[in-house]
Amino acid sequence: MFDKEYYSEIIEKAIAEIDYGKGPRGLFLPVEYTLEGGGKRLRPMLLLATCEALGREPGKAINQAVGIEMFHNFTLLHDDVMDKAEVRRGRPTVHRRWNESVAILSGDAMLTMATQLVVKCTDIYTADCMAEILDLFNTTAMEVYAGQQLDMEFESRRDVTVEEYIEMIRLKTSVLLACACKMGALMAGASEKDADAMYRYGELLGLAFQLQDDNLDTYGDPALFGKEIGGDIINEKKTWLWINAMNREPKRLQRVLDQKLTDYLKIREVRKIYDDLNLREEAQALIERYANEAVEALANVGMTPEARDFFTSLALKSAARSH
Amino acid sequence: MFDKEYYSEIIEKAIAEIDYGKGPRGLFLPVEYTLEGGGKRLRPMLLLATCEALGREPGKAINQAVGIEMFHNFTLLHDDVMDKAEVRRGRPTVHRRWNESVAILSGDAMLTMATQLVVKCTDIYTADCMAEILDLFNTTAMEVYAGQQLDMEFESRRDVTVEEYIEMIRLKTSVLLACACKMGALMAGASEKDADAMYRYGELLGLAFQLQDDNLDTYGDPALFGKEIGGDIINEKKTWLWINAMNREPKRLQRVLDQKLTDYLKIREVRKIYDDLNLREEAQALIERYANEAVEALANVGMTPEARDFFTSLALKSAARSH
Repeated sequence: MFDKEYYSEIIEKAIAEIDYGKGPRGLFLPVEYTLEGGGKRLRPMLLLATCEALGREPGKAINQAVGIEMFHNFTLLHDDVMDKAEVRRGRPTVHRRWNESVAILSGDAMLTMATQLVVKCTDIYTADCMAEILDLFNTTAMEVYAGQQLDMEFESRRDVTVEEYIEMIRLKTSVLLACACKMGALMAGASEKDADAMYRYGELLGLAFQLQDDNLDTYGDPALFGKEIGGDIINEKKTWLWINAMNREPKRLQRVLDQKLTDYLKIREVRKIYDDLNLREEAQALIERYANEAVEALANVGMTPEARDFFTSLALKSAARSH
Repeated sequence: MFDKEYYSEIIEKAIAEIDYGKGPRGLFLPVEYTLEGGGKRLRPMLLLATCEALGREPGKAINQAVGIEMFHNFTLLHDDVMDKAEVRRGRPTVHRRWNESVAILSGDAMLTMATQLVVKCTDIYTADCMAEILDLFNTTAMEVYAGQQLDMEFESRRDVTVEEYIEMIRLKTSVLLACACKMGALMAGASEKDADAMYRYGELLGLAFQLQDDNLDTYGDPALFGKEIGGDIINEKKTWLWINAMNREPKRLQRVLDQKLTDYLKIREVRKIYDDLNLREEAQALIERYANEAVEALANVGMTPEARDFFTSLALKSAARSH
């Protein structure tokens, strides 16, 4: 009953039991490697919890939950190739451990497997909504690619607006959380109204989540956050903090960026600008606003107080998390 | 009525009219570039012809036809990145024209768009078979990846058997032609028996087609074939010719391969081995056998003589083609 441990247990069990069929092992080893790397399993958990909150045994939606997690891991795998990332969750990325071709091809296989999983239903009852679920999944996938495309395009621009940035993270991150929530609702046979409210919850949760991720990249405790602090500043990632600094103190920020500073000094100088502008606090307030709006999106969805507590606490904790 | 010109016309029109939605243009330009590169459009043509042969207006299956062509072009796009190919259909490959990240991401988008297209039906009548069509499509996609994986694994092996090679080209090339035929049959509401016979036709046609492709790479007329002759020999591709030469004259072939010959000499010396073993004629006989078996697979499928002629001529021409 809204027990993270229980969700986690059936998710890990289902991932461990994925049937890779009789194809060549070389195609599936990188898939297993990617999936066993762990991560928060936030998306499948949201899917199962929504299914349960809207009145259906969460285990009935386990294929969809694993499918969404598979899709998420596929995007990480291909993004890591595009970003030439060396490390993911403390281990070498697939293209480093094997090579780029393996990463591309295994990622392709993960996308197709994800599609197979989301339409795999456990009983006749759920078969009815499979067309809608597939449509939601494909539409979401296209939005996630659009988000990644915008993220890449922003790399070579210094004039990205706050609105453009929010739309980019909505596409790249939020819509998949939203999709997980709505898919859980559809699997529970919820009304269109409730399914859409759950979508909106996931979308706002995703915005809070991603903005908090950006904040942690600059202000987090490296021991808790699990990666080096300041990577976004070094790479001149167009984050909410960066864009607002560029809007308000363009000359000062540009001066720092145009100097050939060491990483340490660049982080220190850019952070000084953020601090002088009080951007950390402002970002935190925005994150809390999104988290509160996420909770409000559920106001008219009929669920038990226990279920509501689960989603409320998830949103508020995401906004306050340190890792 | 089994008019290639007509099929070609509705295929090109449908491709030109694809709705890319409101996403960023940068994501879709490489997709359009890839699709407008042309190619034989063999797969969509097979799909439309099968639909017509089994009693339904071919235009009803146009989304599925474009979906299969989209999938085929997605595999070419990602294969070109993996093979570091510079040219495709006389133009720079996507990763050369743009960059690798663009090629990976646009390819991902093409796979999702292909999935959207194959399940997009034009009327209620066809909606019934959408679950089966999606299942066929996903299963085929997994087989195509398995074929590409085997192809890559063969690169570093000199002990590939003929059976392994045939299975690899069956997976990498044939099953998609088979899938196109079966999908056309399903769209026409054909019986399971007829749909499976059409699948078998496509599978055997694919084997004939790929073996002929390999033959042309070594013996074709460069002016007709559209690319340099001998590429497979230079890259030590484990083709049917190569494997049989290695089986019958291992020492002689190895001696040639271990020398540091110029491309020109390497092609000449390897071809001399093939010629001494009569491998070209033997391969041609095998190709014709597959083409004849493809025609035989249709023996019990009820279709007009005109339809049967179309598929017969397609198989026999594929076996005898010079480009």
